[in-house]
Amino acid sequence: MVWNMLLSSRIRNENGAPHGHICLEPLRRPSTLLRPQTSRHLVYIMSLPSYLAWPWGPQRGRIPIDKSNSDETNPPDFEAFEGVTPRAPATSPLSVLGVDMRAIDNNKAHNTSKYKNTSLIARRNKEFIMIIRFDRPFSSQQDNVQVEFLIGSSPDENKGTYMIVSIGREKRDSRWKGRIIGTQGNEVTVGVTPDAGCIIGRFRTFVAVVTDLGKQRTQRNPDTDFYVLFNPWDPADQVYMSRDTDRQEYLMNEVGIIYNGEFNNITSRSWNYGQFEKGVLDACLLVLDAGKVPLLYRGSATEIVRQGSALMNSQDDDGVLVGNWSGDYSIGTAPTAWTGSPEILLKYAKEGCVPVCFAQCWVFAGTLNTFLRCLGIPARVITNYCSAHDNTGNLKTDIVLDEEGRVNKGRTRDSVWNYHCWNEVYMRRPDLPEKYSGWQVVDCTPQETSDGLYRCGPTSVSAIRDGELSYPFDARFVFAELNSDVIYHQSDKYGNSKVIYVDTAYVGKLIITKMANSSNYEDITSNYKYPEGSEKDRQTMQMAERRGVPTRDYFPLSEAGVDIELQADTIKMGDNFKLTLNIKNQTSQSCTLSATISGCVVYYTGVTSTTFKLENKSAKLDPWNTTRLLIDVQAVDYMPYLVEQSNLLFVVYGRIEETGVALSTMRVVTLRPPELTIKVNGTPRVGRDLMVIVSFRNPYNFILKNVQLRLEGPGLIMTKVKTYEQIVPGGSVQYTDTITPQSPGKKVLIACLDCAALRQVTNQLEIIVQ
Amino acid sequence: MVWNMLLSSRIRNENGAPHGHICLEPLRRPSTLLRPQTSRHLVYIMSLPSYLAWPWGPQRGRIPIDKSNSDETNPPDFEAFEGVTPRAPATSPLSVLGVDMRAIDNNKAHNTSKYKNTSLIARRNKEFIMIIRFDRPFSSQQDNVQVEFLIGSSPDENKGTYMIVSIGREKRDSRWKGRIIGTQGNEVTVGVTPDAGCIIGRFRTFVAVVTDLGKQRTQRNPDTDFYVLFNPWDPADQVYMSRDTDRQEYLMNEVGIIYNGEFNNITSRSWNYGQFEKGVLDACLLVLDAGKVPLLYRGSATEIVRQGSALMNSQDDDGVLVGNWSGDYSIGTAPTAWTGSPEILLKYAKEGCVPVCFAQCWVFAGTLNTFLRCLGIPARVITNYCSAHDNTGNLKTDIVLDEEGRVNKGRTRDSVWNYHCWNEVYMRRPDLPEKYSGWQVVDCTPQETSDGLYRCGPTSVSAIRDGELSYPFDARFVFAELNSDVIYHQSDKYGNSKVIYVDTAYVGKLIITKMANSSNYEDITSNYKYPEGSEKDRQTMQMAERRGVPTRDYFPLSEAGVDIELQADTIKMGDNFKLTLNIKNQTSQSCTLSATISGCVVYYTGVTSTTFKLENKSAKLDPWNTTRLLIDVQAVDYMPYLVEQSNLLFVVYGRIEETGVALSTMRVVTLRPPELTIKVNGTPRVGRDLMVIVSFRNPYNFILKNVQLRLEGPGLIMTKVKTYEQIVPGGSVQYTDTITPQSPGKKVLIACLDCAALRQVTNQLEIIVQ
Repeated sequence: MVWNMLLSSRIRNENGAPHGHICLEPLRRPSTLLRPQTSRHLVYIMSLPSYLAWPWGPQRGRIPIDKSNSDETNPPDFEAFEGVTPRAPATSPLSVLGVDMRAIDNNKAHNTSKYKNTSLIARRNKEFIMIIRFDRPFSSQQDNVQVEFLIGSSPDENKGTYMIVSIGREKRDSRWKGRIIGTQGNEVTVGVTPDAGCIIGRFRTFVAVVTDLGKQRTQRNPDTDFYVLFNPWDPADQVYMSRDTDRQEYLMNEVGIIYNGEFNNITSRSWNYGQFEKGVLDACLLVLDAGKVPLLYRGSATEIVRQGSALMNSQDDDGVLVGNWSGDYSIGTAPTAWTGSPEILLKYAKEGCVPVCFAQCWVFAGTLNTFLRCLGIPARVITNYCSAHDNTGNLKTDIVLDEEGRVNKGRTRDSVWNYHCWNEVYMRRPDLPEKYSGWQVVDCTPQETSDGLYRCGPTSVSAIRDGELSYPFDARFVFAELNSDVIYHQSDKYGNSKVIYVDTAYVGKLIITKMANSSNYEDITSNYKYPEGSEKDRQTMQMAERRGVPTRDYFPLSEAGVDIELQADTIKMGDNFKLTLNIKNQTSQSCTLSATISGCVVYYTGVTSTTFKLENKSAKLDPWNTTRLLIDVQAVDYMPYLVEQSNLLFVVYGRIEETGVALSTMRVVTLRPPELTIKVNGTPRVGRDLMVIVSFRNPYNFILKNVQLRLEGPGLIMTKVKTYEQIVPGGSVQYTDTITPQSPGKKVLIACLDCAALRQVTNQLEIIVQ
Repeated sequence: MVWNMLLSSRIRNENGAPHGHICLEPLRRPSTLLRPQTSRHLVYIMSLPSYLAWPWGPQRGRIPIDKSNSDETNPPDFEAFEGVTPRAPATSPLSVLGVDMRAIDNNKAHNTSKYKNTSLIARRNKEFIMIIRFDRPFSSQQDNVQVEFLIGSSPDENKGTYMIVSIGREKRDSRWKGRIIGTQGNEVTVGVTPDAGCIIGRFRTFVAVVTDLGKQRTQRNPDTDFYVLFNPWDPADQVYMSRDTDRQEYLMNEVGIIYNGEFNNITSRSWNYGQFEKGVLDACLLVLDAGKVPLLYRGSATEIVRQGSALMNSQDDDGVLVGNWSGDYSIGTAPTAWTGSPEILLKYAKEGCVPVCFAQCWVFAGTLNTFLRCLGIPARVITNYCSAHDNTGNLKTDIVLDEEGRVNKGRTRDSVWNYHCWNEVYMRRPDLPEKYSGWQVVDCTPQETSDGLYRCGPTSVSAIRDGELSYPFDARFVFAELNSDVIYHQSDKYGNSKVIYVDTAYVGKLIITKMANSSNYEDITSNYKYPEGSEKDRQTMQMAERRGVPTRDYFPLSEAGVDIELQADTIKMGDNFKLTLNIKNQTSQSCTLSATISGCVVYYTGVTSTTFKLENKSAKLDPWNTTRLLIDVQAVDYMPYLVEQSNLLFVVYGRIEETGVALSTMRVVTLRPPELTIKVNGTPRVGRDLMVIVSFRNPYNFILKNVQLRLEGPGLIMTKVKTYEQIVPGGSVQYTDTITPQSPGKKVLIACLDCAALRQVTNQLEIIVQ
């Protein structure tokens, strides 16, 4: 009955365009119209159900907005012009026999050959070519042909979701430019240039031959579907990058290095971004659909980045990854166990957008990086050492000590993360004053709700540096991560607390990222901050206060005149070691320092666990002199309590006996896990089998249980996961696999071993395939 | 077992504060500790379950953030100091016998007496008094007493969720200031001043007597709970308003007028904001809890406003109201049928935060207004006539006509709402440059997703006027609602379309709100816009372009030199009427205008429904002369098709025969519904019964079915709803009710009649109670 009504309404079409008002009159010629036929007529009838949702359909009260690239509505195969009743159209003077999107040639020119995808992948504002084959030679003077490109389920010429490119007799204005490049026999080569601001995603192609009776279209053909992506090569694109070295690193590099550890003991792990892997591009578009991002916003890199940061985490919107810092990852994969993003994104897509378990900051950042590079936005993962997690946004990180100098776990609600990873994207910000274009912070780790959803950014790095915090998005939060002061409080036995020390330099100590075209890191701290104590730094703080950051009203603190600092070397997990407390007396008086050194196990988020050490020391200090205290730490004391990434936090609470002045400092020590070895036998050559051997020995006196070993190599081998029930003390495991390199050049093998008692055991091996 | 572990851990307390690390050792003295007793000891044991969640409890990996004012964690009745094992404490030298929050006196001083609530309701930065009764006279030299105020389930002194005000011997710093005002016998009068930026919501009160052994607290007593709200009377508060007239209107007025209709036929309806009605304050706080707004953000009016705008609609977050523009409201209450907010907010609270069906813009705005005024934020509802709903944010509203000049419903994806209501709030914006403080736009009608959630604002009205669109939140969207150009396209039968006319003055025609202390409206258009075509207006558009609004690239349009304008008088629904098309020839040439006038039924959102009229007219125009055409409209033509608020849209498509130049205009006509009469018999006096009679006659020749009649009178009568199965043609209904005024002064009765065939039949009656 719906069909009858529909066909009836089609008959009553009076607008030139199909008329969507459903007519309840009885159908006049049902038998003719509904009879299955093999003619064009049948095709016309069969296309009606989608035609029901075609934009010319009925609307009541409100016009909906299209939020999916997967849903589609396609035009009818034959669209009659005014006054023409829906009979089979007269023979068309020209018929389309085939359309070839020339994927291989185009993709080379568009820098998209690396995508493991057989479709055309074009970049904005760059011409791609397509070949249309007709049943006779095409005349640009006589024939009138329109190439139509559609996206989504309510294509509209005024909204950039329906582009009509005319070739032939009749010219028309269009967002996408088209031209005839050449004709050869019955074939016409057409060049099409998507506009520089066009929506990114998967488009459908139709070719329509226009006659006086109407438009005769090609049928829906998935082979002519294609993708349009951002274009960092084009100055008109929002994500333009001028240097090729930068584009090669921040867009094209499939493997990256993510830094962790602590600021004076930097460690790292390789990460497979794998943005060109098979299925990853479709998974990224699916993420946008799952997040109901309106198609109309998908031409703006700002929007894609902001929505992407919300959609990488599962909070609010069933995004890609579930954050978990609890230590219990038994129902999923431990955050430390992953080696790259493709495994995660493909799992999310395959399981119908069910969030993947589990992630912590580097997994979030790594996966978002893949999403961004895949869609064509230059992006990198950065690490901020000593990143404040300020629950109130008042630029104060409050650490409460008890009377003995230990961290009072219950009263300390803020934490300083040993390190925190986020992303930077490179783009123009047309919504802001020009100087705030360039690198932007974006952070998809669910820390606090930004404006109601768990996400953060994009926010201009240079605006952060200048303290100009009014501009969107979330500048204040990022500024706090980098510039909070650490306020040490001491609470007495009556529950009264007082501020004993303020450290303005502890937070945002060092910000680094992988250097372009190098395996070293680049220190980008100066992008974010002027030197501590400089005039510019002072101006930044003043500007931040004018932009609503609370004035820092310190209680007057008497100057100790004594500096203390904790120092440690690289320490292997399971070793006994010594910490050094360096003490510098900058006064002309002798004095005595009494210090309490407490050691506790700490998560990388700065949240403390068991206190395993508490020791009192004192030192006589000569005027203008430096001295040091050594603190012995035994493995037996800390080993039973280690959590996650094996971090120890040492806090010193000191008191100058003569003056009663208090001072404090803290230091995180990241213990180095045992080594994982990766080897290959022989010289890697294209097409030749190569054996990979990953091996590990348990150096501890306890059994490692449920050990997961992961191996992957972008362009070499998809992720392999091997599980060992246990590895006994002193026992070894060895995993071997055979790979057959398909292309020459530099490749990376990444391996990771993970179990509840031992995390973050990773390694990578670079090989040159000949 | 949990309890055992817990008690064991309590025994092992070593921090001065309760120690949260759960100990797995066997419990040492289970029999003693778990034996039920009637002493303080029992109370101590009984309070343990909440103590488990007390902030001193264990944390792993991440620290959670408190998002509920309903959840509570309370301190133990006795909190021992260091080294004291948990035995019954020694007799306290001072005991608290009672705490009186002096609600009636305080509420008068705090301008909160109007709230129908028996608790203390304080405003920020203003002192309230409380009386503490001890078992003996209090000595401020000897005794040490702390008054504690807590909110939420993880109270923390450093986060503003746990305030300790010391009275007596020991002084301590605290966000809230306290002082002893006087002592009389065993009673002490204490003055407490919440800080100007403090969290708003419901607080709990404890009084603790501090001895060397520990703190002895009063038990949890809901009678000492109180509210803290924003304070527009205090210059230090973010929402300070200097003029009392303004505060009386925008904060204290419980009844408002919401304007609708069209810009040259302004109609209105009264709305019961009812912000002081019983239960409304708790419902508003519940909305924040349901929306999981972190307590830490609830001191910021900016956050409360922004989150409030998201939480009034059900999209994303199960907020208060479900938007529905479909015309089918059978499973709920039609948007047009409501008469005020309390019914809605109380229903939402009573039904456990299930969104209430249904709302359109004025219902959203009216309810948000209640929420804001109730929490202490000055707010008003404004109406923007001809409000663009620009789906792309490109400042173009595209209206596509077919060849005959009718609106092509399918191809027209934008709409201009006849009117759109939003709110303004008055506040400082510490996050923005100072000049952008003052009135801010906030809009909770779910139009587009702002930044992922359905909400909009706050955005500075003066920033909008200046085109400074970079600042948060959603300035661009609001700017488009006010400044879009209407672009008339015409599409030919081949589906080709061209721009025929651009109207830069149609949108954002008039912006009004109820005037303070008056029943008239105030034209506030100049707050939002400089005069069309002025130098300032030009500068605004330039600034907007520098802030990322796309440059308006009009195709060159030849000037017609002829102006056309549609004119209509006030028209009663069901009447035949005449439209006038005024034509002004501003050239020195005679010419002929051919005009097609189409009439269609339209929703207030500008979305068109059935076309019921299409007429061609032409006129000879003399040089420099004005002429007019009359268009007859018959009731029989439009009556069968009317939707919702009975709006008709007339579009004129004209062509100058001699030059071929096209021109276009449109005009909405809102038909006036039949009258609803409200009467009272006799003079209204306090305590005397008064009869209210609401009557209505169906003037049409069709039956009105399922008619809902609503009556309410703030401070007089809670909402009454009466349903009539049908009202036959010519038939009348009369509803009577008896009210007994409780207080003298000006009161308003509001009535509304609503059914599917007839909406927006409202009236109000002002009465003076003596």
